[in-house]
Amino acid sequence: MRKLPFKQVDVFTDRSFAGNPVAVVFDADGLSDQQMQRVAKWTNLSETTFFQTSTKGDYRLRIFSPKSELPFAGHPTIGSAHAALEAGLVAAGQTSFVQECAAGQVPITAEPDGAIMARVPTAKINGSTLDSGQVRAALGESAVGPVLLIDVGPKWIVTRVASERQLYRMNPNRAMLSNLSRRVGASGASVYTIDDSKTVQVRSFAPAEGVVEDPVCGSGNAAVAAHIREVGLTEQVGAEYTARQGAALGRDGRVRIRIEGEDIYLGGLSRTVVDGVLYV
Amino acid sequence: MRKLPFKQVDVFTDRSFAGNPVAVVFDADGLSDQQMQRVAKWTNLSETTFFQTSTKGDYRLRIFSPKSELPFAGHPTIGSAHAALEAGLVAAGQTSFVQECAAGQVPITAEPDGAIMARVPTAKINGSTLDSGQVRAALGESAVGPVLLIDVGPKWIVTRVASERQLYRMNPNRAMLSNLSRRVGASGASVYTIDDSKTVQVRSFAPAEGVVEDPVCGSGNAAVAAHIREVGLTEQVGAEYTARQGAALGRDGRVRIRIEGEDIYLGGLSRTVVDGVLYV
Repeated sequence: MRKLPFKQVDVFTDRSFAGNPVAVVFDADGLSDQQMQRVAKWTNLSETTFFQTSTKGDYRLRIFSPKSELPFAGHPTIGSAHAALEAGLVAAGQTSFVQECAAGQVPITAEPDGAIMARVPTAKINGSTLDSGQVRAALGESAVGPVLLIDVGPKWIVTRVASERQLYRMNPNRAMLSNLSRRVGASGASVYTIDDSKTVQVRSFAPAEGVVEDPVCGSGNAAVAAHIREVGLTEQVGAEYTARQGAALGRDGRVRIRIEGEDIYLGGLSRTVVDGVLYV
Repeated sequence: MRKLPFKQVDVFTDRSFAGNPVAVVFDADGLSDQQMQRVAKWTNLSETTFFQTSTKGDYRLRIFSPKSELPFAGHPTIGSAHAALEAGLVAAGQTSFVQECAAGQVPITAEPDGAIMARVPTAKINGSTLDSGQVRAALGESAVGPVLLIDVGPKWIVTRVASERQLYRMNPNRAMLSNLSRRVGASGASVYTIDDSKTVQVRSFAPAEGVVEDPVCGSGNAAVAAHIREVGLTEQVGAEYTARQGAALGRDGRVRIRIEGEDIYLGGLSRTVVDGVLYV
């Protein structure tokens, strides 16, 4: 039996229990893939991560859902980098470092206020495969502007609705959205609005993956940022903005976005809520 | 912000990750009901428990699912008692103690091998409200012997199938079982068989509560024990037996049962997998 340092981190928030949790296991070089998968199934969180030593970065991060290993995922990357700094795996004061993961090397920056930002994979945009009538039927609300299929690692169907009211009354048809998502290879739909105070508000639905609604979704927000850039709304919200997500589920997530030309950085504050050891 | 002792315990197993997890928070007198509910929603486990001081027992245990507080539940009671002994909340060597919970006072014993046993609420049995044809249709397998509705706090539809093969190929119709469960006020169906080596093997399905299959279910096993006693099979399996549950989900739970006349004691071994603190 091994005793490994363990944290459960609440991501995209500065208040415990308002964000999206990730379980983080340190010193995981000695664990087999099968052991990591068992742990990830047992924690019952959307993702559990494992730190291993890396020759291509400051650390190697293995990311597991309860079902399988993931090449990359946003909120586990942000929460794990937060944990790495806190645990001294990355030196205090080091403001930029590299995460090696199955998708490759991810550049990460630590901001002066403690936020972590990660560069997400370059967005690939495809509008032609989507029937906007079908998307409207699945979501039950009309979009303003184009419906785009945006690949940021995971793929999202992304669209904008006209008002906060429309965003929060939305109750997608799960079966229709599942079918549509599977047909185009998407995780689900990320829908946003720009409210009266120019704040981006987001909801992400992934019924095809068994997630009716994701409380605060990293890749969903990256895809929304790519949509905002694509449709020319960057000036309206700013090249650096903080989106809000989770209100429909009693959370209060804040996702920081920085658009630098082709690159999109995503991140925010995190809080370590559980700190201790894991007996494997 | 408070820092409270925290454990995540794997229940009904002596091997990490083979049982059913429960999150346990100590020193929780100062938490509001709303705070406890937020923690229980965030851990994403079937139950999170909170130790408070008691005037009617050795401790008071508040048990929350992600949705609401529960009057009593089996696996959280066993895992929390294990944690209480480990943390010294109950003196080492104390072999019997009392848990106060919303359902009342629950007598608990600590066995020489470390197992915890709790007396479950007296089973109330009602066979007349169930249509065995409907149960057969929902489960997709024929029962041997009566189908009974058994109330052990939660209610379970309980039936026996003839073979291990029948038990493990079972894939209930979720919609039918949900409707049936709601109509009779049951959590779901707990189905068992007595295999060639006289071992009781159990599966518990609760689609009406959003749980397709419970990995290792305390109240489901208590209801199965009541069924075994009711149909006169106690001699075949023994008044003390260890049931197995979880194989269909990659778990390997062992639930110890002791039938003493009207009383049923339920329990088993547990392992603390996460040990640390929770920042509330």
